[in-house]
Amino acid sequence: MQSVSAVLYAKNDLRLENRNVEQPEKDEVLVKMHSCGICGTDIAFWTLGGTGTKELEDPIILGHESSGTIEAVGPGVIDLAPGDRVAVELGLPCRKCKLCKKGSYNLCAERGYCWGGLTKLTRHPADFCHKLPDSVSFEQGAMMEPLAVTVRACKRAGVSVGDNVLITGAGSIGLITIAVAKALGASRICITDISKRRLQLAKEMGADFTVLAKVDETGQVLADKVIEAMGQQADIAIECSGVEPSYQLAVWATTSGGVVVVVALEPNMVSIPLVDAASRQVDIRGSFSYANDYPDALALLASGRVNIDPIITHRFSFDDTLKAFDCARDRNTGAVKVMIKIQE
Amino acid sequence: MQSVSAVLYAKNDLRLENRNVEQPEKDEVLVKMHSCGICGTDIAFWTLGGTGTKELEDPIILGHESSGTIEAVGPGVIDLAPGDRVAVELGLPCRKCKLCKKGSYNLCAERGYCWGGLTKLTRHPADFCHKLPDSVSFEQGAMMEPLAVTVRACKRAGVSVGDNVLITGAGSIGLITIAVAKALGASRICITDISKRRLQLAKEMGADFTVLAKVDETGQVLADKVIEAMGQQADIAIECSGVEPSYQLAVWATTSGGVVVVVALEPNMVSIPLVDAASRQVDIRGSFSYANDYPDALALLASGRVNIDPIITHRFSFDDTLKAFDCARDRNTGAVKVMIKIQE
Amino acid sequence: MQSVSAVLYAKNDLRLENRNVEQPEKDEVLVKMHSCGICGTDIAFWTLGGTGTKELEDPIILGHESSGTIEAVGPGVIDLAPGDRVAVELGLPCRKCKLCKKGSYNLCAERGYCWGGLTKLTRHPADFCHKLPDSVSFEQGAMMEPLAVTVRACKRAGVSVGDNVLITGAGSIGLITIAVAKALGASRICITDISKRRLQLAKEMGADFTVLAKVDETGQVLADKVIEAMGQQADIAIECSGVEPSYQLAVWATTSGGVVVVVALEPNMVSIPLVDAASRQVDIRGSFSYANDYPDALALLASGRVNIDPIITHRFSFDDTLKAFDCARDRNTGAVKVMIKIQE
Amino acid sequence: MQSVSAVLYAKNDLRLENRNVEQPEKDEVLVKMHSCGICGTDIAFWTLGGTGTKELEDPIILGHESSGTIEAVGPGVIDLAPGDRVAVELGLPCRKCKLCKKGSYNLCAERGYCWGGLTKLTRHPADFCHKLPDSVSFEQGAMMEPLAVTVRACKRAGVSVGDNVLITGAGSIGLITIAVAKALGASRICITDISKRRLQLAKEMGADFTVLAKVDETGQVLADKVIEAMGQQADIAIECSGVEPSYQLAVWATTSGGVVVVVALEPNMVSIPLVDAASRQVDIRGSFSYANDYPDALALLASGRVNIDPIITHRFSFDDTLKAFDCARDRNTGAVKVMIKIQE
Repeated sequence: MQSVSAVLYAKNDLRLENRNVEQPEKDEVLVKMHSCGICGTDIAFWTLGGTGTKELEDPIILGHESSGTIEAVGPGVIDLAPGDRVAVELGLPCRKCKLCKKGSYNLCAERGYCWGGLTKLTRHPADFCHKLPDSVSFEQGAMMEPLAVTVRACKRAGVSVGDNVLITGAGSIGLITIAVAKALGASRICITDISKRRLQLAKEMGADFTVLAKVDETGQVLADKVIEAMGQQADIAIECSGVEPSYQLAVWATTSGGVVVVVALEPNMVSIPLVDAASRQVDIRGSFSYANDYPDALALLASGRVNIDPIITHRFSFDDTLKAFDCARDRNTGAVKVMIKIQE
Repeated sequence: MQSVSAVLYAKNDLRLENRNVEQPEKDEVLVKMHSCGICGTDIAFWTLGGTGTKELEDPIILGHESSGTIEAVGPGVIDLAPGDRVAVELGLPCRKCKLCKKGSYNLCAERGYCWGGLTKLTRHPADFCHKLPDSVSFEQGAMMEPLAVTVRACKRAGVSVGDNVLITGAGSIGLITIAVAKALGASRICITDISKRRLQLAKEMGADFTVLAKVDETGQVLADKVIEAMGQQADIAIECSGVEPSYQLAVWATTSGGVVVVVALEPNMVSIPLVDAASRQVDIRGSFSYANDYPDALALLASGRVNIDPIITHRFSFDDTLKAFDCARDRNTGAVKVMIKIQE
Repeated sequence: MQSVSAVLYAKNDLRLENRNVEQPEKDEVLVKMHSCGICGTDIAFWTLGGTGTKELEDPIILGHESSGTIEAVGPGVIDLAPGDRVAVELGLPCRKCKLCKKGSYNLCAERGYCWGGLTKLTRHPADFCHKLPDSVSFEQGAMMEPLAVTVRACKRAGVSVGDNVLITGAGSIGLITIAVAKALGASRICITDISKRRLQLAKEMGADFTVLAKVDETGQVLADKVIEAMGQQADIAIECSGVEPSYQLAVWATTSGGVVVVVALEPNMVSIPLVDAASRQVDIRGSFSYANDYPDALALLASGRVNIDPIITHRFSFDDTLKAFDCARDRNTGAVKVMIKIQE
Repeated sequence: MQSVSAVLYAKNDLRLENRNVEQPEKDEVLVKMHSCGICGTDIAFWTLGGTGTKELEDPIILGHESSGTIEAVGPGVIDLAPGDRVAVELGLPCRKCKLCKKGSYNLCAERGYCWGGLTKLTRHPADFCHKLPDSVSFEQGAMMEPLAVTVRACKRAGVSVGDNVLITGAGSIGLITIAVAKALGASRICITDISKRRLQLAKEMGADFTVLAKVDETGQVLADKVIEAMGQQADIAIECSGVEPSYQLAVWATTSGGVVVVVALEPNMVSIPLVDAASRQVDIRGSFSYANDYPDALALLASGRVNIDPIITHRFSFDDTLKAFDCARDRNTGAVKVMIKIQE
C-alpha cells in the first residue's frame, strides 16, 4: 500500500510524499491516522536538524502525537477490531534489552525519539494502540502523547496530595502539567514564563500563581520572585523551559528534601547550584518520554479529570502541513498546540 | 486549672468530671477545645473495654478528633498565638525512639491510640496543633483526624492517577477514603457494605460502583460481584470493614502486582488466601493512625478538593456526651459521624 | 530434531521419551542442556499433581534449574555463539501485557511456572540465556535459578545493611537465602526448621542463630523462641517453609515497621494475626519466581560472594531421573538439592 | 565543670581553651571524650573559614568524629550507664520541624554541620550516643561518623547486589565507600583519583579498578577511561571529590536509568551535562550527613563486614591538636584520616 507521509530529509526540508506500508503481521494492526499534533521536537528537527543530544540521520516521518482508526488487524490480535478508534503510541522499544525487561522501555536504546505519525496509514503493534472510549475525541487521543509525558513527569516527581508545585515554562508541556499535578492532589501550583499570554492560559488551566520572568533575569532573582508569590518554597519543581536560569531557579526555589524534575531537553551543559541541591537533598531527576503512561493519560481524559482542549490553538489540514509547521514555529502566532487533521 | 472531661473508667463507665490542667511549658500551648468527633475506637473502648489488640488499663479521656482555639502559649512558641483556631493532633510520640527518628511516629510504642479530646481545656505541644485558615470550620478541623487516617491509607496504598480502587466497608473511614482516593487521581472507585443507606451516601461521596453485601456471603462470592461491577480487578483495595470475608474479598478482587491496605483493626486472627496473594505479589500493608498527614488533610480541605461535611450526621452538646455515644453506637440511628460541640 | 525429555503425564507418571525440537528462529538459540536441579515444585507436581494454587493440565517437561551449551544460534543473535556456556532462564513471558511492560514479567499470566529443563536439547530466546564466565560451573549455572528466587525475595524484603533477618524453613531456598541476605549486608540471621541436620547446614551457610521447631509448636511459642535467640525482633522475616505456624511466627517475630516476605507457595488459606501486622505496619509481601534477577545471581556467584555448593547433596545421571526424584522426595535421604547431569 | 576544648574563633585561629559544661539534664548524659578524627570540613572551616555554602559565624568547638565513655547520666536514661563506651553522634536536630518528624533530621535547619567533638567532656542527649560492643575500639567508634556518611550515600544510591559502582575521589569518604558498597552487595567497584598513593590504598580497601586522573583532564576523557577500565558504564556513581570534571564524569560514565550521588560539598556552581542525564534518567541525588545511619555503621563494624582501620594514617595527642591539623592539611604527609586521642 501507499501512504502519503510528511518526511523530513534534512534541516528545513520537509516533504509530503508516498511511502510504502506493509500489511500487519502477527500481533500488529493497520491504522488509518486521523489527527497528529506538532511537538517542539518536530520543530527542533525541522528547523535545527536535531536537539541538543540527538541529530537527524536518515529521513524520518515527523509527528508522534497521533490517533486514528483500526483499518485491519493481523493474526493474534483479539483486543482490537477494524473500526476501533485508538491513540497510537509511536516509538517502539526492542522488548528484549535490560531496560525494556525492567519496565523502562522509554530508555531503550533502540527506541529513542518517537516518529512516524504524519502519515495516512501505518502498521503498528497492537499493544501500542490504546482504544478510545466514545467520550474521547481523536484530537484528545492525539493529545494523549503530551499528556503521557506530563503524567510521567509528575510520577517521577512523586506529585501527591498537599504538594506545592513549581512549573518553569508555560509551553504545552508546562500547561498540561498544571492539570495533571492538580489531578494528582497537588495543593498550589506556581508557573513561570516570559509570555503574558501563556501565563494567562496557565491561569485558565488552573495555576494558582503566575510569575512573569524577564529574559535577562538570573535564577536567583527568579527564585526570590517565585518564593514571594508562593509564600514558601515549592516541594517539587518541574522544569519545562529549557533555559539555564530556570534550571537554577528550580533548585533554589525547592525546599530541602524536595525534587526537581527535568522535562525540557536543552541545552545540554547547564550550570546549576549542585552543592546547594545536594546538601539540601533536592533530587534532580530527568523524565524522558513515557513508559506505561498512556493508560493513565486515557483515564484522566475519560474521567473528565483533566481538560486539555484549551491547549489546541490552531488546526490545519494534512495538505497544509508546511503551513502548520510555520505556524507552530512562529512565536507571533500565539500557537501553543498545532493540530494536523490527516483525515478530513 | 480545672477542665470538665469525659473520662472512661471501665467498660460502659463513661463520666463527665473535672480534671486538672497545667499551664503550658516550653514549646507548648493551652487549647480551649471546640469540637470533637466520636470514632469507632471510642465506641469499642466504651462498649467492649478495648479493641482486638488493646485493652483499657487506666482511666482515659476519650475523643481524639478535635479542634479548638489557642488560649495561651508557653515559652518558645512563635508560630501560634492566643485566638488562633487549630486542629489538635492528639497522641504524642516520644520523639527519641528508632521509629520516631525514622519518621514513623505513628508506630512509637509510647504513643499507641490517641486520647484526650473530650475536655474543655488541654495542654499540648505546639507542633502538634495545626492552624486552621478561615475557610476551614471547627468541625472540619475535628474531621481532619479521620481525614488524616485516610490520607495515610491512600499513601500506604500508593493511590495515584488511573488506579481502580476497591473500598470494603462504608463507615466514616471508608466514605472519606472515596474522596481522598479521587483527590489523588484514582480512576474508578467501587465500595462494598451491608447497608443500602451507607452505599447511597457513598455514591454522594463519589463512588462509581457500589456492591451490597449480604452478611453471610463468602469472600469469593463478594469478589465475583465486585469484579463484575468494576468490569475488572481493582489495582488497590482498602479494607475498612473489619470482617473476615472482606479481607478475603480484598485479596481476590485485587490484580496481580496490586496492593491491599488494611485500615480496620479487628478481628486479629484472619484466614486469608495468603499464597494466592503472595504468588500474584498482591502486597498486604497495614496503615495505622497517621504520621505527618495532618498538613495534607488540611491542604485537601482548604483547597476544597475534598468535602467531608456529608459524613457528619448528628451533633450533641458536651453535656449530652452520653447521648452522643448512645447515638453513635446504635445502628438504627443511621449515624455515621457524631460530633460533640464542647464549646457552644 | 529429537530430544530425550522427562515428561510428566499425570501424578506419579513421569516418563523419559523423545520430543521434537525445532531449529532456532530469529533471536533464538538451541541449547544442549547440561545440568538440571530438582525443585520442590517438580516434586509437588510429580507426587500431588500440582500445588495449592495450580494443577497439572497438559503433559509438561519437568525441571527449570538448568544450564547448558549453545549448540546453534538463529538470525539476529549477536551476544551468544555456539560453544558458549549458559544458564537457561526457563519460563517465557509474553512481553506485551501490562505486567511485562512494567517489568514484572514474573507475574505475566502467560508465564506461570517454569518448565522444560529436563531435556537434551531446547530452543530458547537468546535474551533468556545468561552467559557463564569460566569461573562458574554448569552446576552453579543450574543453581542460579533458586539463587534468583532468593535474590528476588531479599529485594522484595529490602534486605540491607544492619538488618536482622529471620528465615523460616531451612530447605534449599531458605538455606540459599542465608547467603544472599549476608551478601546484601544483613547483620544477623536466625533460621528455623524441624530438622537438626538442616539447621546444621544452615550454620555452615552462615546463620548466626538456629531455632529447632517441634511439629506441634504454635506460632506464638516459636516467636518467643526466636526473639529469645536473636535478643530482639527481626527487621525482616522471609517465609520459606509453607506451614501455618511459620506464617504466624513470621508476623509476631517481626518488629513494627518491618516486612514479612512470603516465598513458600502452600497452603493457600492461612490464618494469620493480620491486625497485629497491620497496626504495627508489618508489611506482608509475596515474592514469586524472579524477573531480571539472573544477572544479579550470576554476579553473586562470579564474585565468589555467595557459595551455594554445600546445598547440592546428590547427583544422578539423566537415565536415572526417576531415582533422582525418589531421592528428592524421601526425607530420609537427607537430600537438599538433587542435581541431574543431562550430559555426562 | 571545665572542659579543655579546641575552639575555632576565625580562619586560622584555633585555640585550646577551657569551656564550661553543665550536668546532664533529663534524657541526657555526660561523656568523657576519647578519640576524635579530623574531617575535611574541619580543615575547610579552619583554613578557609567555611565551605562553599556555609561560613563560620560564632566560635565553634571543632570535631565531630567522636567516641568516649559515659561519665554520668541524667534522669530518665535507662539504656546507658557510667562506664559505657559510646560513639557520639554530634549535631542535634530540633525534633519538631517537618523534616525531623519525617525522619530527615539531617536536613533540619537547626542542625546544620556537626561540631563539638574536640573537648574533654560534653553533655549530650542519650539517644544520640551509640553504645559500643567490646569488639569495637574507640577509634572505630570515632570512625563511625564517616562510616555513617558513606552508609547514607550508598543507601541514597540504592547500592545493591550486582551493581557496578564508580566512586570519584579516593579521600577518606571515597575509600570507606568502597568497603560499604561491597558490604551491600556491589559487584565491581572502580575509583578515580589524582594520587597514585590513594589509589593504592583503594585497592587495599577492595576496589576492583582504579583510574589515575590527571589534573587537567576533562570529564569526557575521564569517562572514557572509566568505561574502558570497567568494560561498561557504572550503574551508580558516588561523587566524593568536589571537582567539576568529576561531576561530569559521574554523569557520562553512568548507565541509563542509573544514579549519581553527590557527597562532596564544593564548589557550589557546577556545569554538568544535565540534559544528557535527564534524557537517560540518570538521577542526581545529594547525600548530606546522616540520619538514623549510626546503628547501621555499628552493625558493619561489629560484624567485621567492614574494615576501616587502614584509613587511619596518623595519630596525635589532644595537646598536639594544632600539629594534627597541620598534618591533615598538608598533602605531602600522605594523611588520610588523622585521629586525635583526647584521653591518653
